[in-house]
Amino acid sequence: MSSVLSGHLLGPHDVRLRRSGLKVRFCTNESQKSRGRLVGELRRLGFDVAEAEVTAPPPAACRILRERGLRPHLLVHDEVRSEFDQIDTSNPNCVVIGDAGEHFSYRNMNRAFQVLMGLPDPVLLSLGKGRYYKETSGLMLDVGGYMKALEYACGIEAEVVGKPSPEFFGSALRELGVEARQAVMIGDDIVGDVGGAQRCGMRALQVRTGKFRPSDEHHPEVKADGYVDNLAEAVDLLLQHADK
Amino acid sequence: MSSVLSGHLLGPHDVRLRRSGLKVRFCTNESQKSRGRLVGELRRLGFDVAEAEVTAPPPAACRILRERGLRPHLLVHDEVRSEFDQIDTSNPNCVVIGDAGEHFSYRNMNRAFQVLMGLPDPVLLSLGKGRYYKETSGLMLDVGGYMKALEYACGIEAEVVGKPSPEFFGSALRELGVEARQAVMIGDDIVGDVGGAQRCGMRALQVRTGKFRPSDEHHPEVKADGYVDNLAEAVDLLLQHADK
Repeated sequence: MSSVLSGHLLGPHDVRLRRSGLKVRFCTNESQKSRGRLVGELRRLGFDVAEAEVTAPPPAACRILRERGLRPHLLVHDEVRSEFDQIDTSNPNCVVIGDAGEHFSYRNMNRAFQVLMGLPDPVLLSLGKGRYYKETSGLMLDVGGYMKALEYACGIEAEVVGKPSPEFFGSALRELGVEARQAVMIGDDIVGDVGGAQRCGMRALQVRTGKFRPSDEHHPEVKADGYVDNLAEAVDLLLQHADK
Repeated sequence: MSSVLSGHLLGPHDVRLRRSGLKVRFCTNESQKSRGRLVGELRRLGFDVAEAEVTAPPPAACRILRERGLRPHLLVHDEVRSEFDQIDTSNPNCVVIGDAGEHFSYRNMNRAFQVLMGLPDPVLLSLGKGRYYKETSGLMLDVGGYMKALEYACGIEAEVVGKPSPEFFGSALRELGVEARQAVMIGDDIVGDVGGAQRCGMRALQVRTGKFRPSDEHHPEVKADGYVDNLAEAVDLLLQHADK
């Protein structure tokens, strides 16, 4: 094992990992904040993380757009629009949808729909496919439902850029310069973190915090390679096995 | 054959049908206008149609709500809200979604989502499941996509009240007081009109107008019992066979 991917921020524990020489990378589906702002907030909270250590959907989408000569119509949060500053958005030939929050108006959804329906071969990139997330004010719809709405209306299938897409984990591994079998994923989401990483050929631990539910240990489709009660225990386990 | 259901307004041709003694009923998925307003507009255009001859999703939904003691949270167009005037909407135990147009804001979608997630056994009634429709300003998203968004986010399946639901055609037949085998559906939508009516046990003609596309005649799943170029031809055919 030569590296650790984490869907969960390792926080104070990552000091031990860093000292061990293991490469660490953070994989997030955050699509309401730019990577710069996310890292800035984390650093102010005392987390030792650099922008280059974060794999997030917007930069991954930009790479895909460039590789395939795609010019996106953007339906994303204002905060992440800057991530696409270097991308040509004139005369769009695809749609990129992210967790746009209040920007998911009928008008904006309809505009994205019309762009797709006007294309001979519609391409829809979705920054994640989360169902919902929790805020202090309650549960909030995530991008997944809006992706499904456009898929259904247009009769197409979106390409998901983010967890649990194996391509997304693959891009994190390429950035680390390691093979899947050399890396371990740690996360709290049995499908998004554990299942996605395993489909990419990695081993994956689930932490019993955050999104974890006891029923995850009997999930019908995904079985983690191990369970740990918290991140400290995950780090213990990783350091014990770091030479394997 | 003793009756005709039409997803397409028969217009001037219905005079001949009425004289023939055949019962006529209009089945529409219109969920942006009240039945009263729809009929009013049609009458001003010269169509001879009464409110009681129209089967539309909102009244069908009201019947279901009453039968099952359901109190809806409404995510519908302002125009059809009045159709639910007699329904108790306090302390909602289900959600009714219609083609809400501009009311499909993130805030309103999130509120409907939160109501569903707060229920031990979430019930979502959808007034149709259309993908989109055409207006002079261009293609517009219909209720179907938003239904899919809530289905995905909540992990549930909506009950569709409207075409092509066989229950919806069944309610039109009950209102006419005839059996499915005695009725013929005429419509321009191969799946919504023809397929739905056939699944309910009726025969169905497709008219080569409106939504009709030449590829419909080779649809992989639905085959109409007959095709006609226009409504006049449909009426000719029906009158020829009215005794069968």
